[in-house]
Amino acid sequence: MLTYSFEDIGNDTLYEHLYKAVKNDILNGTLTPMQKLPSKRSFAKNLSISTITVENAYSQLLAEGYIFSIPKKGYYVSNFSNPLLPNTDIKSDFHNTDTIHNFSNDDIKVNSLDTSIINDHDTLKDAGGINLTANHINADNFPFSIWSKLIREVISNEKSSLMSPLPSAGSYELRCAIAKHLLDYRGLKVNPEQIIIGAGTEYLYSIIIQLMGRKLVYGLEDPGYKKISKIYNSHKVACTYIPITGSGINMDILKESNADIMHISPSHHFPTGIVTSVGTRYKLLEWANENKARYIIEDDYDSEFRLVGKPIPALLGIDTNKKVIYMNSFSKSLSSTIRISYMVLPAQLMKKYNETLSFYSCTVSAFEQATLAKFISEGYFEKHINRMRNYYRKLRDALLNAIRKSPLNSNCTILEENSGLHFLLKINTNKSDAQLKEDAKSNGLIISCMSDYYMHHHVNDNEHIIIINYSGIDANNIDSIIEKLCQII
Amino acid sequence: MLTYSFEDIGNDTLYEHLYKAVKNDILNGTLTPMQKLPSKRSFAKNLSISTITVENAYSQLLAEGYIFSIPKKGYYVSNFSNPLLPNTDIKSDFHNTDTIHNFSNDDIKVNSLDTSIINDHDTLKDAGGINLTANHINADNFPFSIWSKLIREVISNEKSSLMSPLPSAGSYELRCAIAKHLLDYRGLKVNPEQIIIGAGTEYLYSIIIQLMGRKLVYGLEDPGYKKISKIYNSHKVACTYIPITGSGINMDILKESNADIMHISPSHHFPTGIVTSVGTRYKLLEWANENKARYIIEDDYDSEFRLVGKPIPALLGIDTNKKVIYMNSFSKSLSSTIRISYMVLPAQLMKKYNETLSFYSCTVSAFEQATLAKFISEGYFEKHINRMRNYYRKLRDALLNAIRKSPLNSNCTILEENSGLHFLLKINTNKSDAQLKEDAKSNGLIISCMSDYYMHHHVNDNEHIIIINYSGIDANNIDSIIEKLCQII
Repeated sequence: MLTYSFEDIGNDTLYEHLYKAVKNDILNGTLTPMQKLPSKRSFAKNLSISTITVENAYSQLLAEGYIFSIPKKGYYVSNFSNPLLPNTDIKSDFHNTDTIHNFSNDDIKVNSLDTSIINDHDTLKDAGGINLTANHINADNFPFSIWSKLIREVISNEKSSLMSPLPSAGSYELRCAIAKHLLDYRGLKVNPEQIIIGAGTEYLYSIIIQLMGRKLVYGLEDPGYKKISKIYNSHKVACTYIPITGSGINMDILKESNADIMHISPSHHFPTGIVTSVGTRYKLLEWANENKARYIIEDDYDSEFRLVGKPIPALLGIDTNKKVIYMNSFSKSLSSTIRISYMVLPAQLMKKYNETLSFYSCTVSAFEQATLAKFISEGYFEKHINRMRNYYRKLRDALLNAIRKSPLNSNCTILEENSGLHFLLKINTNKSDAQLKEDAKSNGLIISCMSDYYMHHHVNDNEHIIIINYSGIDANNIDSIIEKLCQII
Repeated sequence: MLTYSFEDIGNDTLYEHLYKAVKNDILNGTLTPMQKLPSKRSFAKNLSISTITVENAYSQLLAEGYIFSIPKKGYYVSNFSNPLLPNTDIKSDFHNTDTIHNFSNDDIKVNSLDTSIINDHDTLKDAGGINLTANHINADNFPFSIWSKLIREVISNEKSSLMSPLPSAGSYELRCAIAKHLLDYRGLKVNPEQIIIGAGTEYLYSIIIQLMGRKLVYGLEDPGYKKISKIYNSHKVACTYIPITGSGINMDILKESNADIMHISPSHHFPTGIVTSVGTRYKLLEWANENKARYIIEDDYDSEFRLVGKPIPALLGIDTNKKVIYMNSFSKSLSSTIRISYMVLPAQLMKKYNETLSFYSCTVSAFEQATLAKFISEGYFEKHINRMRNYYRKLRDALLNAIRKSPLNSNCTILEENSGLHFLLKINTNKSDAQLKEDAKSNGLIISCMSDYYMHHHVNDNEHIIIINYSGIDANNIDSIIEKLCQII
């Protein structure tokens, strides 16, 4: 039986330590593809730890694709060069219940600063009802007083630098603060000189198009955010759509396609919630390495909000050939109304940017760059993210509990609830998706369905999968939401 | 002799009233093309006003192209349909001394809030010397305390709206404030619904390209801002370069070109300082009206800083066929480090924007939009502009006086000093422009020459015209600047 020492675990929790130990043994070949892992109970007994610790470690390895499970049989090491991953039928695939695990959060370290966050504030006023599609952030959750204090300090102390034109790529202080954050939070070693700050990822896409050239073909996830597709189309660059499977994008279809740049969100795909498996990650990098023109855009838009276990590691972290353009923003973690995003370019692309595009002025106000730099470097951002993760977890749990206690429970399946700020609700109904949305609307509830996000590969217009984006809802509205949902099905 | 009543002049100054009266008579045909106007002295005597009042009114009419002067003969009404304007040789043209007038500012209404503005602060540190090319704003000139107060108010009072996604075109409050400002300050009647806020004009150009289509040809001023050309080139849209004459762009060359969209700065061309004459303005609009695809982009980037007389009216103000896209920013009037610009689209283009591009999120932070809206609507912006105009006028006067008292005076001609934040210094020297710049640099002075701004039509690489951008210099450095300039010639 596998044995690991728990003597030298540093700051890790028990489950993090176990996760890292097993992951290392998979990566270094000690554990070989298809090898069966000990059952949770026997492994726990052998290591003198709780079953829940093993469960959490296995869940993390499962989420990242290092291992897979066969119901009633157990856990096995994945085969990276020939991943034992399901077929490419989207429907059957990402609803594969093998990958859905409900487990306790007790073992997870949470920096809980404020437990009275879910309160009686601010009814959403969108269209006179409740909007489950908007990325609204409740006003109570933004750190207004700290932000206000930091702006005042910046205005008092940095007058002269606030009036000096910033480098095209943005304030060096902010880029250093982001690099530090990426190291601490995502384990990414990034040179601040390779970071470009911009007024939203939408703007940064246009910079990428100008940087990479208009003759390349951009591969987009299908289903996926329609807005990303709209932006590429609006710039009149060629796009191709690659379907999503249970382990990330379909690599066979990608390889057959003419895509040069693959735009993905490996840590958490929207709307399916799928995490790209480690096998697919290595295949993606291999695909990019095959051709000089190929690159991967890693959109890490909500990696801060994995509500169970550790954040999923970034693709950039295993990119040894400088093929990954990493993008993130403060839209989910702070507010979408503060338009600050950034990207990390591989050294050769940053060089090209400096040579060809650095005539552009940075699009973000010097005042807000200086404020955000302080917010991150003085530790407020970390506290804020921890607080928000805690808040969203409670909100999600309250919503899930309410669903489970309601008549809805017998008519739906909850999917992909452990990550990001939405989950999926597969509903047992005869109504069409269009009818579901219409009925919801007339009940004062704005919803979207999975079928709204298909682009090229229309699989099924009536999957009855509702996307529950809970980032902007109020805990007081949960009963009302459930009631409305019950009415429409 | 012409006679006008000065009884009903309202809030206008005497010269403004006279300017408007003569302009109206030119526009309504009472004064006909080529008609000689009274001499300044006899007109003044007849109207019982001072000669300087007539001189200021004539200067404004001259600047806007309603009249022209023939040395030793007098002033004549321009012929709009066949403007009696000089030939298209750039060199001889915009240095035509007929259009250069030095007159007193005594008659000009100035809201002087602060006369102790030129003070002993902040030596520019660019490259260890003085930079006459940078758009730096001295930190003392930004209204930090008011801005700080307004941000605090916004954060205290508008929490909920600060967290709600803004319309794609920007905050309605800010658009209303801008519409009001355009009415009060530029006499433009603009519907707030036709205003789009963006993070810099550079970003707005990319929106225009997406809106108008990539197949159109963009006409650019030559000489002109190289950055504008770089942006269009970076987006890989076709550009054509139209030379500048003494009355604006060369209409004959524009008509022969394949340009669809003409990008101009009629109120104050950079770097020549030329104001597009009213004759050329009507011809431009006529040109645009000839073809459905044609439009004019009016870049009104520093119209707030005409230091003599009234601001030059905007082209948008006489655009009856909805052919003008008006653009402006707060870069010159507030600070380039606050990235807020806007454009006013004709109704049919705004409709197209709403249909095709409003999926884009607004690129400017909600916090700063709310702060700027308050800054404008509570009257601070008007006060700030007046204060800055006064400040820049004093700075320019101090610089001009210092030049005139120095040995430089016998070796140079000062050109186009009445508008914007730069003037031209034509130097009598045998050195090449490249040598001038190099010698300046080794003396700790960074300068640019007119010849740096030619694009397609290279007229003369050695014109010896230095662009003196004084927006960022310190009054205490004037002697040092003159000394360095003397050394290099």
